[in-house]
Amino acid sequence: MDMVLKGGTVATARDIYTADVGIQGGSIAVIGRDLRGDRVLDVSGKYIFPGAVDPHTHLELEFMDTVSSDDFYTGTVAAACGGTTTIIDYAEQMPGGTLGQAVEVWRAKADSKVVVDYGLHVSITDVRREVLAEMEDVVRQGVSSFKCYLAYPERLRDDELLQVFLRARDIGALVNVHCENGWLVDFMARKLLGEGKTAPRWHPRSRPASFEEEATQRAVTLASIAQAPLYVVHLSCEGALGAARRARDAGQPVFVETCPQYLLLDIDRYDDPGFNGAKYVLSPPLRERKNLDLLWKALALGNVDTVGTDHCPFKLVGQKDLGRDDFTKIPNGIPGVETRLPLLYHEGVNQGRISVNRFVELVATNPARLFGLYPQKGTIAVGSDADLVVWDPEKEMHLTVENLHMNVDYSPYEQVTVRGYPEMVLARGKVIVEDNRFVGEQGSGRFLERRPFSLS
Amino acid sequence: MDMVLKGGTVATARDIYTADVGIQGGSIAVIGRDLRGDRVLDVSGKYIFPGAVDPHTHLELEFMDTVSSDDFYTGTVAAACGGTTTIIDYAEQMPGGTLGQAVEVWRAKADSKVVVDYGLHVSITDVRREVLAEMEDVVRQGVSSFKCYLAYPERLRDDELLQVFLRARDIGALVNVHCENGWLVDFMARKLLGEGKTAPRWHPRSRPASFEEEATQRAVTLASIAQAPLYVVHLSCEGALGAARRARDAGQPVFVETCPQYLLLDIDRYDDPGFNGAKYVLSPPLRERKNLDLLWKALALGNVDTVGTDHCPFKLVGQKDLGRDDFTKIPNGIPGVETRLPLLYHEGVNQGRISVNRFVELVATNPARLFGLYPQKGTIAVGSDADLVVWDPEKEMHLTVENLHMNVDYSPYEQVTVRGYPEMVLARGKVIVEDNRFVGEQGSGRFLERRPFSLS
Amino acid sequence: MDMVLKGGTVATARDIYTADVGIQGGSIAVIGRDLRGDRVLDVSGKYIFPGAVDPHTHLELEFMDTVSSDDFYTGTVAAACGGTTTIIDYAEQMPGGTLGQAVEVWRAKADSKVVVDYGLHVSITDVRREVLAEMEDVVRQGVSSFKCYLAYPERLRDDELLQVFLRARDIGALVNVHCENGWLVDFMARKLLGEGKTAPRWHPRSRPASFEEEATQRAVTLASIAQAPLYVVHLSCEGALGAARRARDAGQPVFVETCPQYLLLDIDRYDDPGFNGAKYVLSPPLRERKNLDLLWKALALGNVDTVGTDHCPFKLVGQKDLGRDDFTKIPNGIPGVETRLPLLYHEGVNQGRISVNRFVELVATNPARLFGLYPQKGTIAVGSDADLVVWDPEKEMHLTVENLHMNVDYSPYEQVTVRGYPEMVLARGKVIVEDNRFVGEQGSGRFLERRPFSLS
Amino acid sequence: MDMVLKGGTVATARDIYTADVGIQGGSIAVIGRDLRGDRVLDVSGKYIFPGAVDPHTHLELEFMDTVSSDDFYTGTVAAACGGTTTIIDYAEQMPGGTLGQAVEVWRAKADSKVVVDYGLHVSITDVRREVLAEMEDVVRQGVSSFKCYLAYPERLRDDELLQVFLRARDIGALVNVHCENGWLVDFMARKLLGEGKTAPRWHPRSRPASFEEEATQRAVTLASIAQAPLYVVHLSCEGALGAARRARDAGQPVFVETCPQYLLLDIDRYDDPGFNGAKYVLSPPLRERKNLDLLWKALALGNVDTVGTDHCPFKLVGQKDLGRDDFTKIPNGIPGVETRLPLLYHEGVNQGRISVNRFVELVATNPARLFGLYPQKGTIAVGSDADLVVWDPEKEMHLTVENLHMNVDYSPYEQVTVRGYPEMVLARGKVIVEDNRFVGEQGSGRFLERRPFSLS
Repeated sequence: MDMVLKGGTVATARDIYTADVGIQGGSIAVIGRDLRGDRVLDVSGKYIFPGAVDPHTHLELEFMDTVSSDDFYTGTVAAACGGTTTIIDYAEQMPGGTLGQAVEVWRAKADSKVVVDYGLHVSITDVRREVLAEMEDVVRQGVSSFKCYLAYPERLRDDELLQVFLRARDIGALVNVHCENGWLVDFMARKLLGEGKTAPRWHPRSRPASFEEEATQRAVTLASIAQAPLYVVHLSCEGALGAARRARDAGQPVFVETCPQYLLLDIDRYDDPGFNGAKYVLSPPLRERKNLDLLWKALALGNVDTVGTDHCPFKLVGQKDLGRDDFTKIPNGIPGVETRLPLLYHEGVNQGRISVNRFVELVATNPARLFGLYPQKGTIAVGSDADLVVWDPEKEMHLTVENLHMNVDYSPYEQVTVRGYPEMVLARGKVIVEDNRFVGEQGSGRFLERRPFSLS
Repeated sequence: MDMVLKGGTVATARDIYTADVGIQGGSIAVIGRDLRGDRVLDVSGKYIFPGAVDPHTHLELEFMDTVSSDDFYTGTVAAACGGTTTIIDYAEQMPGGTLGQAVEVWRAKADSKVVVDYGLHVSITDVRREVLAEMEDVVRQGVSSFKCYLAYPERLRDDELLQVFLRARDIGALVNVHCENGWLVDFMARKLLGEGKTAPRWHPRSRPASFEEEATQRAVTLASIAQAPLYVVHLSCEGALGAARRARDAGQPVFVETCPQYLLLDIDRYDDPGFNGAKYVLSPPLRERKNLDLLWKALALGNVDTVGTDHCPFKLVGQKDLGRDDFTKIPNGIPGVETRLPLLYHEGVNQGRISVNRFVELVATNPARLFGLYPQKGTIAVGSDADLVVWDPEKEMHLTVENLHMNVDYSPYEQVTVRGYPEMVLARGKVIVEDNRFVGEQGSGRFLERRPFSLS
Repeated sequence: MDMVLKGGTVATARDIYTADVGIQGGSIAVIGRDLRGDRVLDVSGKYIFPGAVDPHTHLELEFMDTVSSDDFYTGTVAAACGGTTTIIDYAEQMPGGTLGQAVEVWRAKADSKVVVDYGLHVSITDVRREVLAEMEDVVRQGVSSFKCYLAYPERLRDDELLQVFLRARDIGALVNVHCENGWLVDFMARKLLGEGKTAPRWHPRSRPASFEEEATQRAVTLASIAQAPLYVVHLSCEGALGAARRARDAGQPVFVETCPQYLLLDIDRYDDPGFNGAKYVLSPPLRERKNLDLLWKALALGNVDTVGTDHCPFKLVGQKDLGRDDFTKIPNGIPGVETRLPLLYHEGVNQGRISVNRFVELVATNPARLFGLYPQKGTIAVGSDADLVVWDPEKEMHLTVENLHMNVDYSPYEQVTVRGYPEMVLARGKVIVEDNRFVGEQGSGRFLERRPFSLS
Repeated sequence: MDMVLKGGTVATARDIYTADVGIQGGSIAVIGRDLRGDRVLDVSGKYIFPGAVDPHTHLELEFMDTVSSDDFYTGTVAAACGGTTTIIDYAEQMPGGTLGQAVEVWRAKADSKVVVDYGLHVSITDVRREVLAEMEDVVRQGVSSFKCYLAYPERLRDDELLQVFLRARDIGALVNVHCENGWLVDFMARKLLGEGKTAPRWHPRSRPASFEEEATQRAVTLASIAQAPLYVVHLSCEGALGAARRARDAGQPVFVETCPQYLLLDIDRYDDPGFNGAKYVLSPPLRERKNLDLLWKALALGNVDTVGTDHCPFKLVGQKDLGRDDFTKIPNGIPGVETRLPLLYHEGVNQGRISVNRFVELVATNPARLFGLYPQKGTIAVGSDADLVVWDPEKEMHLTVENLHMNVDYSPYEQVTVRGYPEMVLARGKVIVEDNRFVGEQGSGRFLERRPFSLS
């Protein structure tokens, strides 16, 4: 046995028990008691979680005339420090380009930098006949999910999205949809700007919950027509959740992701003094408080499937301020890849809103299952990768810029102190984080070939 | 290590991997590779499932002028042969009696006979002030769930059920409700009998799906008023599922159980020749075919939480025939404790409707979690009871009376051959079933003190 | 021509135009221009409405140890002064008694006193085989609607209500249901009293909206099972309206009545100082404000069919104060037969919430149609009874006790001044009200034999 | 009195009674008994209906490379012969053109030809800033409703439709929306053609009910965002009706039109032998039978507001056959302006599905009210235009091409014989149809300036 984690409380999506975990050759070799090994770490009083899987990141993304400020090194270091040992990043098809090119470009950016394993989705932004044909090749290369936008200039028309669904059904791909009605958003933004409303607080007014609900309803209908599974990314509001749940209750495979920002922050943040509201300019925007309560209940009862981050950081100085005079020019996004687990644990588990098991399921197991990484990732089981988080439930951390590793000059949770934080993080059996310091190696992460989608 | 199951495919509600399972002192001690032990069984090519938990049985139940034909010995032997190593039986409060008496009477019947561990629910049939007070004591004794009927003479009035919910919320109990509108059923039955309609085929006509839907809607509303969790037993139809799901989607903790008979048999069975329809006289009755399809989809997508049996067997000769001239006198019930896993595996997993993990979750993990037995029961984890099923996915079995161990003279699945069956069953580390033969000991099962209900 | 109303604006449920109305022999003989007659009244600048039909009154009702304070004389005088020329009162079956007896008793009370025409519903409170049989005779006598309670001691069980629906369907009767769950109400009231909560403000807390929604849902389901039409009386809240509308949208003939008190008064009234909250103790109780807004929208869009009054007055001194120390002993009811039209006109038409046509439809035409009085009552058409209201849209009135004719010592609308009031009221061609004075004759009203219910 | 119709049964949307109707100067002057006049027609035993209003016609419409085969003369003659004395035709904005030009073009086509009064809607197909501005002028000219397409090349984007709604709300216009998702239709049509599926039977498969439901849901949402009223034209299916009704129940002013073809013909017609299915190529297409039953119930219960025709005839020879080898080239449309009343009366009133009043309301009163023509049109009241239909309830008519006046070489109802037909039709007091012959004068109809929309 290369290493034994001794006496911890192993917590998976369903189980919770005290045991030693033995690691050999980067995998979990044995779970039991009285195990011995070359290196033995006493982790009693700590949880052992499977390394978390973030199904939604945007590293080094060229977007809105700038580039998201975390590259694949800083971004994955931050992920690791926060307990996430796998990310699935969105490679973006260029206009006129192919999906394969997107994958190539992203791998070129990522492979030499990543410190944890990673997979890719591809965003389809230019639906041509040959692009639809190419989807199958991409799935065979281990990129078994696609994203389609209904907002932003990259948005698809309904017939294009339908075609993507039809293909996806046939080749075992899962289609992720950004559900906001972009036509309405663009109109409303123009209208507000025309009325001289340029500050960050007008951003959420340009894309109200009804626009998200409409688009979600439409995506659900198109998926139903195509009999294809649907994964709704970053769902933020009651109406959209209702659309998704009605479909699921009727037997349609619709899956829902939300993000910590939609659980913890509300629309009042846009009224922060000065230009500070820009910190929270992301899409969909933060919502009225009642939506937050509903989303927490949905987490507890299994009505939301995953918690991702939509990590897409931009610095306040030099990036967010591109939109100082025009909220539509503020790069959309928020940092989050590092704080997902601490926030969800503190506000969810500590507050009694969700169980430890549900916590693990939302941040690790379900993302791994839905995106074809399971059981290699997302659980603690014999044979699984030894991606493990030793979690100290008593460790307190202020979520300030100083304590975090993301390459961004603000923290949306600057005032927040959480209890419960990683003490140590292992990736394929190697310790890569200790005491909030990254101790691993650049480029040590690997590209993951994900399996096709399967309902089971 | 007392025993090692070697090389099997361990399947839990979430995980599936190849490993050895080591057992010591009746518990699972280690899961890993290359384990050694005093007794080593090669189970390669087989699944290792956690022993299943049947949350709904009626053994030795005095009901409708007779007694259900399996006692706690024959019933638990049959359970074990079918892969179920824990049952939760319903103790029934007598009119004028206390809940504590019901528990005593049931333990007196069961303790010396059971061959697997068991827990008890208590059915509250006579709501008096002191009975409501007594609920807390019963929960402290490890009986943390109660059943209320909305049909049968035992049914409660709405205010009585509300009071039970209010108490349950305060003391951490889960209320199970039999949702059929008994007043309507009685009227309809009288009406049909009055028209000379006495054959078994009139049984389902006396209690149509709308009666179940109405009662489910009412139970959901009352639970909502009381802010108490609700467990709907043996749900059989689309309307009732809709009522439960709408509440759950809105954040109400409503849980749903269905049974194999509602997944596999339909209302046409009542037209079997002669008096054979009586075999299927149970409540709720078998439904129109469309409900079956919907229930399967609900299983796959997580819209149903558990699959129990409502095992309540009566012999065709000498029992069912009490109602030869009057369908309302046919004892209501069907055997099933032994066939739950084979049927669900064959029709669910083999047909691609549900995954192996979901199968385990429905028959073992979720019942254990909802009823406070987890992780002692319901999973394969270090420290859990070594209740294990070695499942041969290739073993075929005809579900005839001859091959089954339930004390009843017919099989509802006489013509059915399944693929996938227990090869060996262990209870707390002891082999109690081998090759479809019970090899354990009468009275070796123990009463389980279940923990109070908790959403997490 | 006996009389001509000259130059008024005739308004029916659909039409509005300027014309003379000629009356002969108690009926409308001609509508046109330049009509001549023995007596010509210039009504230019005034509306001519059909005399209104109040589908829901309780005169001389023995209830809760007292008798409603308006008898058939004072009550119908008040009705007439407010523009209502037909009432349909509820005759109540006595325990052990027959429906025919109820009709007899009521006619004995009413015939010699009524100053406007009237019809009767019968409340079925004791469902016996012979009572069900008797329903048909009663319908033949012109009493073609029945009421069933789901609250109060008079409430029916579900099977009893179902039987009433089944009979009603076969004989062309319309079943009116009081939808509150009486079992829950009784429990909650006892609970509150047990906690020392005896003041009027606890009345609405003993029967919250959820109890009404549940009962409405149940009534809708039972009617659906029986394929019988349903008329929900005095609907007060959003949840109940939703239940009714979902059924109607699905093609089920469900009709909804609300009352002015549910449109104008809210739950805050129970906090009026001293014992004044008792003025508003009626069932269902006044609701949260949001329900009022919804009900107004429903009136405008045709989602509510009628506005009745549930007129059931009790004096504050000597009657309401029976419950000074126990809110459950406060006689339930509120006066309203006189103020229905002024309030609905002022708050509805003057405020632009509903049109004049919709106003007429709600207070006159729809009640007449649903209850088999049309076109004799409820419209202005050649051949219809000359029950007419000359309505002065500019006349202001303070709705104080002094200005009203109901035999009760308080007005729920004491502070309200309305614009729009009857200037003159005719019953079968005779002027019976002039300038807010009754000028007709006691006993001049007739019993109306109503036709069976028909959807068209 | 110029003319008196003597002894008929006057039927309006709410009233039904026997009376004489006196006409003077083109208007209804008096309704009563024993009227005298210069010309007296005995119409006893006949109904007198208000002349019907068809809110949805397409005469002389250039569409799909041809022109609808009825011009404003033949089309209005046919309308009149069928009992319709007002039509509202759709003027179509040309790409780059203005709304005013559309009105001018249409008036130039219509004014000299129409034999009954007519109004215009304008279809907005090119949303430019100045076009939005111009809407108000058009409303002032008496064109107070606009149509937007969500299908066909003329379709609007969501932001364009939202802008139209926003304008409409401010200026009192009613927006009519053709709800089918045109992007999906185009894709599906191309797909089917690509598979060699070119026959008429593929037309409905290229635009299934789900496409209509999606578009209806979207239109409802956009109208809700804009707080504008919505009129859904030619609704054909259950899902779309559900979307409309849910909104209406929640207090949103959404109105629904259906057409006789969706009530009487189903998808099986596309399997008529040879190219005969082309007769029924219209959009939305004919639907599965279950939708028909639901629509009838909706008519009866007030869940549909109007019955229009979407009259848009194309000859089988020379027009429909443009699409002999490609169903997408078959001009979309069906004749109907003449048969609306006979079909709805025969299948609705004679079959007991709707009352005579409801019949009148659907074909005359509601269209007149919603589109600002009431009470000039749509009712029989003093002062209203003397547009009247003397309806013989016993007259039988075979709806063959020979018996009809529409300029088209087939009848969709060739085999149908109805009972109930116009005996005589009057327009502004002049008899224009007698015994199924047009006896009026070309150009005698007038353009109607319609009032702005108002909810009341």
